[in-house]
Amino acid sequence: MGYQDINVVAFDADDTLWVNEPVFQDVEQALVEMLSHYVPLSQARDQLFDTNIRNLELFGYGAKSFTLSMIETAIEISEGKISASEIQKIMNLGKNLIQYPIELLDGVENVLQKLQGRFQLMLLTKGDLYDQECKIARSGLADYFDHVEIIAEKDECAYQKVLGKYRVTAEEFLMVGNSVKSDVLPVMSIGGRAIHVPFHTTWQHEEVCPSKFESTSVHQIDNVSELLPMLLPELY
Amino acid sequence: MGYQDINVVAFDADDTLWVNEPVFQDVEQALVEMLSHYVPLSQARDQLFDTNIRNLELFGYGAKSFTLSMIETAIEISEGKISASEIQKIMNLGKNLIQYPIELLDGVENVLQKLQGRFQLMLLTKGDLYDQECKIARSGLADYFDHVEIIAEKDECAYQKVLGKYRVTAEEFLMVGNSVKSDVLPVMSIGGRAIHVPFHTTWQHEEVCPSKFESTSVHQIDNVSELLPMLLPELY
Repeated sequence: MGYQDINVVAFDADDTLWVNEPVFQDVEQALVEMLSHYVPLSQARDQLFDTNIRNLELFGYGAKSFTLSMIETAIEISEGKISASEIQKIMNLGKNLIQYPIELLDGVENVLQKLQGRFQLMLLTKGDLYDQECKIARSGLADYFDHVEIIAEKDECAYQKVLGKYRVTAEEFLMVGNSVKSDVLPVMSIGGRAIHVPFHTTWQHEEVCPSKFESTSVHQIDNVSELLPMLLPELY
Repeated sequence: MGYQDINVVAFDADDTLWVNEPVFQDVEQALVEMLSHYVPLSQARDQLFDTNIRNLELFGYGAKSFTLSMIETAIEISEGKISASEIQKIMNLGKNLIQYPIELLDGVENVLQKLQGRFQLMLLTKGDLYDQECKIARSGLADYFDHVEIIAEKDECAYQKVLGKYRVTAEEFLMVGNSVKSDVLPVMSIGGRAIHVPFHTTWQHEEVCPSKFESTSVHQIDNVSELLPMLLPELY
Protein backbone atom coordinates (compact mmCIF):
# COMPACT_ATOMS: atom_id res chain seq x y z
CA MET A 1 0.00 0.00 0.00
CA GLY A 2 1.45 3.36 -1.00
CA TYR A 3 1.29 6.61 0.85
CA GLN A 4 -0.54 8.67 -1.77
CA ASP A 5 -3.40 9.49 0.64
CA ILE A 6 -1.08 11.00 3.23
CA ASN A 7 -1.29 14.78 3.68
CA VAL A 8 0.06 15.17 7.19
CA VAL A 9 3.35 13.68 8.37
CA ALA A 10 3.94 13.88 12.10
CA PHE A 11 7.29 13.23 13.72
CA ASP A 12 8.08 12.26 17.27
CA ALA A 13 11.01 14.30 18.61
CA ASP A 14 13.22 12.57 21.22
CA ASP A 15 15.28 9.77 19.65
CA THR A 16 13.45 10.25 16.34
CA LEU A 17 14.74 13.68 15.33
CA TRP A 18 17.50 14.03 17.90
CA VAL A 19 19.45 12.07 20.48
CA ASN A 20 17.77 12.03 23.90
CA GLU A 21 17.74 8.73 25.78
CA PRO A 22 21.58 8.43 25.84
CA VAL A 23 21.74 11.84 27.54
CA PHE A 24 19.41 10.58 30.28
CA GLN A 25 21.45 7.38 30.53
CA ASP A 26 24.68 9.36 31.02
CA VAL A 27 23.08 11.37 33.81
CA GLU A 28 21.72 8.18 35.36
CA GLN A 29 25.21 6.67 35.23
CA ALA A 30 26.66 9.70 37.02
CA LEU A 31 24.00 9.35 39.70
CA VAL A 32 24.46 5.64 40.35
CA GLU A 33 28.23 6.14 40.55
CA MET A 34 27.70 8.91 43.08
CA LEU A 35 25.60 6.46 45.13
CA SER A 36 27.98 3.53 44.70
CA HIS A 37 29.32 3.73 48.26
CA TYR A 38 25.79 3.00 49.48
CA VAL A 39 24.56 0.31 47.06
CA PRO A 40 25.77 -1.49 43.91
CA LEU A 41 25.22 0.31 40.60
CA SER A 42 22.51 -2.04 39.39
CA GLN A 43 20.49 -1.68 42.59
CA ALA A 44 20.65 2.10 42.39
CA ARG A 45 19.57 1.92 38.75
CA ASP A 46 16.59 -0.30 39.60
CA GLN A 47 15.57 1.91 42.48
CA LEU A 48 15.75 5.04 40.30
CA PHE A 49 13.54 3.32 37.73
CA ASP A 50 11.01 2.38 40.40
CA THR A 51 10.96 5.90 41.87
CA ASN A 52 10.51 7.35 38.40
CA ILE A 53 7.57 5.11 37.63
CA ARG A 54 6.01 5.70 41.06
CA ASN A 55 6.29 9.48 40.53
CA LEU A 56 5.10 9.41 36.92
CA GLU A 57 1.47 9.85 37.86
CA LEU A 58 2.37 12.85 40.01
CA PHE A 59 5.10 14.48 37.95
CA GLY A 60 4.62 13.29 34.35
CA TYR A 61 7.55 12.87 31.94
CA GLY A 62 10.59 15.02 31.43
CA ALA A 63 13.80 16.34 32.87
CA LYS A 64 12.35 18.12 35.91
CA SER A 65 10.40 15.04 36.87
CA PHE A 66 13.53 12.90 36.43
CA THR A 67 15.58 15.32 38.55
CA LEU A 68 13.08 15.19 41.42
CA SER A 69 13.08 11.40 41.23
CA MET A 70 16.91 11.32 41.25
CA ILE A 71 16.95 13.43 44.42
CA GLU A 72 14.32 11.25 46.08
CA THR A 73 16.18 8.06 45.10
CA ALA A 74 19.43 9.42 46.53
CA ILE A 75 17.75 10.27 49.84
CA GLU A 76 16.17 6.81 50.04
CA ILE A 77 19.29 4.88 49.05
CA SER A 78 21.50 6.79 51.50
CA GLU A 79 18.84 6.39 54.20
CA GLY A 80 18.88 10.15 54.66
CA LYS A 81 22.67 10.34 54.97
CA ILE A 82 23.40 12.06 51.67
CA SER A 83 24.69 15.63 52.10
CA ALA A 84 23.07 18.78 50.80
CA SER A 85 26.08 19.47 48.59
CA GLU A 86 25.66 16.06 46.94
CA ILE A 87 21.98 16.86 46.39
CA GLN A 88 23.04 20.11 44.74
CA LYS A 89 25.29 18.03 42.46
CA ILE A 90 22.27 15.95 41.48
CA MET A 91 20.32 19.15 40.87
CA ASN A 92 23.13 20.28 38.56
CA LEU A 93 23.02 16.95 36.70
CA GLY A 94 19.32 17.67 36.18
CA LYS A 95 20.06 21.15 34.89
CA ASN A 96 22.45 19.65 32.33
CA LEU A 97 19.62 17.42 31.22
CA ILE A 98 17.56 20.51 30.45
CA GLN A 99 20.12 22.40 28.41
CA TYR A 100 22.17 19.72 26.65
CA PRO A 101 23.17 20.54 23.07
CA ILE A 102 20.80 18.95 20.57
CA GLU A 103 22.42 16.42 18.25
CA LEU A 104 20.24 15.79 15.21
CA LEU A 105 20.00 12.22 13.95
CA ASP A 106 21.39 11.34 10.51
CA GLY A 107 19.30 12.51 7.60
CA VAL A 108 16.68 14.33 9.65
CA GLU A 109 17.21 17.82 8.33
CA ASN A 110 17.38 16.67 4.70
CA VAL A 111 14.12 14.75 5.07
CA LEU A 112 12.31 17.72 6.57
CA GLN A 113 13.65 20.01 3.85
CA LYS A 114 12.39 17.69 1.12
CA LEU A 115 8.98 17.10 2.68
CA GLN A 116 8.35 20.72 3.61
CA GLY A 117 5.75 22.31 1.35
CA ARG A 118 4.68 18.91 0.00
CA PHE A 119 3.08 17.73 3.22
CA GLN A 120 1.82 19.41 6.34
CA LEU A 121 4.56 18.62 8.83
CA MET A 122 3.80 18.20 12.49
CA LEU A 123 6.08 17.73 15.45
CA LEU A 124 4.13 15.61 17.91
CA THR A 125 5.85 14.74 21.14
CA LYS A 126 5.01 13.93 24.71
CA GLY A 127 6.83 15.20 27.71
CA ASP A 128 7.38 18.35 29.66
CA LEU A 129 6.00 21.34 27.73
CA TYR A 130 8.66 23.89 28.57
CA ASP A 131 11.48 21.41 28.27
CA GLN A 132 10.34 20.20 24.84
CA GLU A 133 9.76 23.73 23.57
CA CYS A 134 13.31 24.64 24.56
CA LYS A 135 14.65 21.54 22.78
CA ILE A 136 12.70 22.38 19.62
CA ALA A 137 14.13 25.89 19.71
CA ARG A 138 17.67 24.59 20.26
CA SER A 139 17.29 21.99 17.49
CA GLY A 140 16.94 24.68 14.81
CA LEU A 141 14.15 22.59 13.22
CA ALA A 142 11.15 24.64 14.37
CA ASP A 143 10.64 26.38 11.01
CA TYR A 144 10.14 23.11 9.15
CA PHE A 145 6.96 22.35 11.07
CA ASP A 146 3.51 23.68 10.31
CA HIS A 147 2.28 22.52 13.71
CA VAL A 148 3.89 21.65 17.01
CA GLU A 149 1.92 19.65 19.56
CA ILE A 150 3.33 18.68 22.93
CA ILE A 151 1.00 16.35 24.76
CA ALA A 152 1.11 14.69 28.15
CA GLU A 153 0.52 11.14 26.94
CA LYS A 154 0.44 9.55 23.50
CA ASP A 155 -2.57 7.29 23.57
CA GLU A 156 -5.44 6.77 21.14
CA CYS A 157 -7.54 9.46 22.76
CA ALA A 158 -4.73 12.01 22.59
CA TYR A 159 -4.11 11.30 18.89
CA GLN A 160 -7.81 11.64 18.18
CA LYS A 161 -7.86 15.02 19.89
CA VAL A 162 -4.92 16.28 17.86
CA LEU A 163 -6.45 15.09 14.58
CA GLY A 164 -9.75 16.72 15.54
CA LYS A 165 -8.06 19.99 16.38
CA TYR A 166 -6.44 20.25 12.94
CA ARG A 167 -9.38 18.67 11.10
CA VAL A 168 -7.17 15.91 9.82
CA THR A 169 -8.62 12.47 9.06
CA ALA A 170 -6.86 9.34 10.26
CA GLU A 171 -6.55 8.18 6.62
CA GLU A 172 -4.38 11.15 5.65
CA PHE A 173 -2.20 11.00 8.79
CA LEU A 174 1.21 9.35 9.06
CA MET A 175 3.15 9.19 12.31
CA VAL A 176 6.90 8.57 12.34
CA GLY A 177 8.68 7.71 15.56
CA ASN A 178 10.99 5.46 17.51
CA SER A 179 8.47 4.16 20.05
CA VAL A 180 6.17 1.31 19.07
CA LYS A 181 4.14 1.94 22.21
CA SER A 182 3.66 5.69 21.75
CA ASP A 183 4.14 6.39 18.07
CA VAL A 184 2.92 3.29 16.29
CA LEU A 185 0.30 1.16 18.06
CA PRO A 186 -2.15 3.92 19.14
CA VAL A 187 -2.02 5.56 15.69
CA MET A 188 -2.70 2.28 13.90
CA SER A 189 -5.52 1.48 16.25
CA ILE A 190 -7.39 4.70 15.33
CA GLY A 191 -6.96 3.96 11.63
CA GLY A 192 -3.89 6.08 10.93
CA ARG A 193 -0.57 5.01 9.44
CA ALA A 194 2.69 4.75 11.33
CA ILE A 195 6.32 4.06 10.54
CA HIS A 196 8.70 2.80 13.16
CA VAL A 197 12.29 4.09 13.09
CA PRO A 198 13.98 2.20 15.94
CA PHE A 199 16.63 4.02 17.91
CA HIS A 200 19.49 1.94 19.28
CA THR A 201 18.26 2.28 22.85
CA THR A 202 14.75 2.56 24.27
CA TRP A 203 13.68 3.73 27.69
CA GLN A 204 12.59 0.65 29.62
CA HIS A 205 9.15 2.22 30.22
CA GLU A 206 8.54 2.51 26.47
CA GLU A 207 9.26 -1.12 25.72
CA VAL A 208 6.33 -3.22 24.55
CA CYS A 209 5.67 -6.85 25.01
CA PRO A 210 6.96 -8.53 21.78
CA SER A 211 3.76 -10.52 21.26
CA LYS A 212 1.73 -7.32 21.07
CA PHE A 213 4.26 -5.93 18.66
CA GLU A 214 4.56 -8.91 16.34
CA SER A 215 0.85 -9.37 15.98
CA THR A 216 0.62 -6.03 14.22
CA SER A 217 2.42 -5.54 10.94
CA VAL A 218 4.49 -2.52 11.69
CA HIS A 219 6.33 -0.83 8.88
CA GLN A 220 9.89 -0.39 10.10
CA ILE A 221 12.75 1.56 8.53
CA ASP A 222 16.36 1.88 9.66
CA ASN A 223 16.81 5.54 8.92
CA VAL A 224 14.40 8.41 8.53
CA SER A 225 15.86 9.06 5.04
CA GLU A 226 14.00 5.99 3.78
CA LEU A 227 10.83 8.07 4.09
CA LEU A 228 11.75 10.06 0.98
CA PRO A 229 11.28 7.36 -1.69
CA MET A 230 8.15 6.18 0.15
CA LEU A 231 6.51 9.59 0.36
CA LEU A 232 7.92 11.15 -2.80
CA PRO A 233 8.11 8.20 -5.24
CA GLU A 234 7.96 10.56 -8.22
CA LEU A 235 11.29 12.10 -7.18
CA TYR A 236 13.21 8.95 -6.26
CA MET B 1 -18.83 48.59 22.77
CA GLY B 2 -20.78 45.37 23.11
CA TYR B 3 -19.60 41.83 22.74
CA GLN B 4 -21.83 40.80 19.85
CA ASP B 5 -18.82 39.92 17.63
CA ILE B 6 -17.38 37.48 20.14
CA ASN B 7 -17.54 33.79 19.20
CA VAL B 8 -14.75 32.37 21.32
CA VAL B 9 -14.39 32.98 25.05
CA ALA B 10 -11.10 31.83 26.55
CA PHE B 11 -10.51 31.52 30.26
CA ASP B 12 -7.26 31.49 32.15
CA ALA B 13 -7.24 28.75 34.81
CA ASP B 14 -5.17 29.43 37.95
CA ASP B 15 -6.80 32.12 40.11
CA THR B 16 -9.41 32.73 37.40
CA LEU B 17 -11.35 29.47 37.57
CA TRP B 18 -9.86 28.08 40.77
CA VAL B 19 -7.69 29.04 43.72
CA ASN B 20 -3.97 28.56 43.05
CA GLU B 21 -1.62 31.28 44.26
CA PRO B 22 -2.67 30.92 47.94
CA VAL B 23 -1.73 27.23 47.77
CA PHE B 24 1.76 28.20 46.60
CA GLN B 25 1.93 30.86 49.31
CA ASP B 26 1.06 28.31 52.01
CA VAL B 27 3.81 26.01 50.79
CA GLU B 28 6.24 28.93 50.66
CA GLN B 29 5.30 29.83 54.23
CA ALA B 30 6.01 26.27 55.37
CA LEU B 31 9.40 26.42 53.67
CA VAL B 32 10.50 29.76 55.13
CA GLU B 33 9.44 28.60 58.60
CA MET B 34 11.49 25.44 58.11
CA LEU B 35 14.48 27.66 57.28
CA SER B 36 13.86 30.19 60.07
CA HIS B 37 16.75 28.93 62.19
CA TYR B 38 19.10 29.95 59.37
CA VAL B 39 17.67 33.29 58.20
CA PRO B 40 14.66 35.54 58.92
CA LEU B 41 11.43 34.68 57.13
CA SER B 42 11.52 37.67 54.81
CA GLN B 43 15.06 36.94 53.67
CA ALA B 44 14.20 33.32 52.89
CA ARG B 45 11.14 34.52 50.97
CA ASP B 46 13.23 36.96 48.90
CA GLN B 47 15.85 34.36 48.19
CA LEU B 48 13.23 31.83 47.07
CA PHE B 49 11.76 34.42 44.72
CA ASP B 50 15.21 35.16 43.26
CA THR B 51 16.00 31.46 42.80
CA ASN B 52 12.63 30.93 41.14
CA ILE B 53 13.19 33.77 38.67
CA ARG B 54 16.77 32.68 37.99
CA ASN B 55 15.55 29.13 37.25
CA LEU B 56 12.54 30.22 35.20
CA GLU B 57 14.46 30.21 31.93
CA LEU B 58 15.68 26.70 32.66
CA PHE B 59 12.63 25.15 34.30
CA GLY B 60 9.61 27.19 33.17
CA TYR B 61 6.53 27.64 35.38
CA GLY B 62 4.76 25.19 37.63
CA ALA B 63 4.90 23.04 40.71
CA LYS B 64 7.92 20.89 39.73
CA SER B 65 9.93 23.96 38.86
CA PHE B 66 8.92 25.56 42.16
CA THR B 67 9.87 22.40 44.09
CA LEU B 68 13.34 22.28 42.53
CA SER B 69 13.82 25.97 43.36
CA MET B 70 12.67 25.38 46.96
CA ILE B 71 15.28 22.63 47.36
CA GLU B 72 18.00 24.78 45.83
CA THR B 73 17.07 27.74 48.04
CA ALA B 74 17.18 25.57 51.16
CA ILE B 75 20.66 24.28 50.26
CA GLU B 76 21.91 27.82 49.63
CA ILE B 77 20.37 29.36 52.73
CA SER B 78 21.64 26.60 55.01
CA GLU B 79 25.07 26.81 53.32
CA GLY B 80 24.84 23.10 52.63
CA LYS B 81 23.93 22.19 56.22
CA ILE B 82 20.31 21.18 55.61
CA SER B 83 19.72 17.45 56.11
CA ALA B 84 18.45 15.00 53.53
CA SER B 85 15.36 14.35 55.64
CA GLU B 86 14.52 18.05 55.58
CA ILE B 87 14.98 18.04 51.80
CA GLN B 88 12.57 15.12 51.62
CA LYS B 89 10.10 17.26 53.60
CA ILE B 90 10.46 20.00 50.99
CA MET B 91 9.92 17.40 48.26
CA ASN B 92 6.72 16.36 50.04
CA LEU B 93 5.58 20.01 50.19
CA GLY B 94 6.10 20.06 46.43
CA LYS B 95 4.07 16.90 45.99
CA ASN B 96 1.20 18.53 47.90
CA LEU B 97 1.40 21.39 45.45
CA ILE B 98 0.79 18.96 42.63
CA GLN B 99 -2.23 17.20 44.08
CA TYR B 100 -4.05 19.82 46.15
CA PRO B 101 -7.86 19.69 45.95
CA ILE B 102 -9.21 22.19 43.43
CA GLU B 103 -11.44 24.89 44.92
CA LEU B 104 -13.52 26.56 42.20
CA LEU B 105 -13.99 30.31 42.46
CA ASP B 106 -17.49 31.71 43.04
CA GLY B 107 -19.79 31.62 40.06
CA VAL B 108 -17.37 29.82 37.73
CA GLU B 109 -19.38 26.70 37.08
CA ASN B 110 -22.63 28.61 36.55
CA VAL B 111 -20.97 30.93 34.03
CA LEU B 112 -19.50 28.01 32.06
CA GLN B 113 -22.88 26.24 32.07
CA LYS B 114 -24.64 29.32 30.70
CA LEU B 115 -22.02 30.08 28.04
CA GLN B 116 -21.59 26.49 26.87
CA GLY B 117 -23.18 25.92 23.46
CA ARG B 118 -23.54 29.67 22.88
CA PHE B 119 -19.81 30.32 22.49
CA GLN B 120 -16.79 28.20 21.77
CA LEU B 121 -15.19 27.94 25.18
CA MET B 122 -11.45 27.60 25.52
CA LEU B 123 -9.28 26.99 28.53
CA LEU B 124 -6.02 28.78 27.85
CA THR B 125 -3.38 28.61 30.51
CA LYS B 126 0.35 28.70 30.86
CA GLY B 127 2.43 26.49 33.06
CA ASP B 128 3.52 22.93 33.37
CA LEU B 129 1.61 20.74 30.89
CA TYR B 130 1.14 17.65 33.02
CA ASP B 131 0.41 19.63 36.17
CA GLN B 132 -2.23 21.78 34.45
CA GLU B 133 -3.85 18.76 32.77
CA CYS B 134 -4.17 17.09 36.16
CA LYS B 135 -5.72 20.23 37.66
CA ILE B 136 -8.22 20.48 34.79
CA ALA B 137 -9.18 16.85 35.37
CA ARG B 138 -9.52 17.39 39.13
CA SER B 139 -11.56 20.57 38.63
CA GLY B 140 -14.42 18.68 36.99
CA LEU B 141 -14.70 21.50 34.42
CA ALA B 142 -13.05 19.78 31.44
CA ASP B 143 -16.34 18.98 29.70
CA TYR B 144 -17.37 22.62 29.47
CA PHE B 145 -14.46 23.43 27.17
CA ASP B 146 -14.33 22.91 23.43
CA HIS B 147 -10.58 23.44 23.45
CA VAL B 148 -7.83 23.25 26.02
CA GLU B 149 -4.50 24.91 25.29
CA ILE B 150 -1.61 24.83 27.71
CA ILE B 151 1.22 27.05 26.56
CA ALA B 152 4.65 27.85 27.96
CA GLU B 153 4.33 31.63 27.89
CA LYS B 154 1.37 33.95 27.26
CA ASP B 155 2.77 36.60 24.98
CA GLU B 156 1.45 38.13 21.74
CA CYS B 157 3.15 35.55 19.59
CA ALA B 158 1.68 32.67 21.60
CA TYR B 159 -1.84 34.10 21.37
CA GLN B 160 -1.45 34.56 17.64
CA LYS B 161 -0.40 30.94 17.28
CA VAL B 162 -3.42 29.70 19.21
CA LEU B 163 -5.83 31.85 17.18
CA GLY B 164 -4.19 30.63 13.97
CA LYS B 165 -4.47 27.04 15.03
CA TYR B 166 -8.24 27.28 15.59
CA ARG B 167 -8.79 29.72 12.69
CA VAL B 168 -10.21 32.29 15.06
CA THR B 169 -9.88 36.00 14.28
CA ALA B 170 -8.73 38.43 16.97
CA GLU B 171 -12.04 40.33 16.58
CA GLU B 172 -14.12 37.34 17.66
CA PHE B 173 -11.83 36.38 20.56
CA LEU B 174 -12.34 37.33 24.21
CA MET B 175 -9.85 36.40 26.94
CA VAL B 176 -10.87 36.36 30.59
CA GLY B 177 -8.25 36.16 33.31
CA ASN B 178 -6.74 37.48 36.49
CA SER B 179 -3.37 38.57 35.12
CA VAL B 180 -3.10 41.91 33.35
CA LYS B 181 0.36 40.94 32.14
CA SER B 182 -0.55 37.52 30.71
CA ASP B 183 -4.29 37.61 30.02
CA VAL B 184 -5.05 41.21 29.10
CA LEU B 185 -2.22 43.27 27.60
CA PRO B 186 -0.94 40.78 24.97
CA VAL B 187 -4.48 39.98 23.80
CA MET B 188 -5.40 43.66 23.44
CA SER B 189 -2.20 44.35 21.60
CA ILE B 190 -3.03 41.81 18.88
CA GLY B 191 -6.51 43.29 18.47
CA GLY B 192 -8.46 40.88 20.67
CA ARG B 193 -10.68 41.70 23.63
CA ALA B 194 -9.87 40.96 27.25
CA ILE B 195 -11.60 41.20 30.59
CA HIS B 196 -9.64 41.39 33.80
CA VAL B 197 -11.03 39.59 36.84
CA PRO B 198 -8.57 40.46 39.61
CA PHE B 199 -7.84 37.83 42.22
CA HIS B 200 -7.09 39.03 45.74
CA THR B 201 -3.44 38.07 45.45
CA THR B 202 -1.07 38.08 42.48
CA TRP B 203 2.26 36.34 42.12
CA GLN B 204 4.94 39.04 42.31
CA HIS B 205 6.28 37.98 38.89
CA GLU B 206 2.90 38.67 37.26
CA GLU B 207 2.59 42.21 38.59
CA VAL B 208 2.76 44.98 36.00
CA CYS B 209 4.02 48.48 36.34
CA PRO B 210 0.90 50.62 37.08
CA SER B 211 1.73 53.19 34.40
CA LYS B 212 1.62 50.50 31.72
CA PHE B 213 -1.65 49.28 33.15
CA GLU B 214 -3.41 52.65 33.43
CA SER B 215 -2.48 53.75 29.95
CA THR B 216 -4.67 51.00 28.53
CA SER B 217 -8.36 50.98 29.23
CA VAL B 218 -8.81 47.57 30.70
CA HIS B 219 -12.29 46.26 31.29
CA GLN B 220 -12.32 44.96 34.84
CA ILE B 221 -15.02 42.99 36.65
CA ASP B 222 -15.11 41.82 40.27
CA ASN B 223 -16.58 38.40 39.66
CA VAL B 224 -16.70 36.15 36.65
CA SER B 225 -20.54 36.11 36.95
CA GLU B 226 -20.61 39.64 35.56
CA LEU B 227 -19.70 38.10 32.20
CA LEU B 228 -23.23 36.75 31.79
CA PRO B 229 -25.14 40.05 31.26
CA MET B 230 -22.27 41.27 29.08
CA LEU B 231 -22.15 38.24 26.83
CA LEU B 232 -25.80 37.21 26.95
CA PRO B 233 -27.63 40.58 27.14
CA GLU B 234 -30.79 39.02 25.68
CA LEU B 235 -31.10 36.76 28.72
CA TYR B 236 -30.30 39.26 31.47
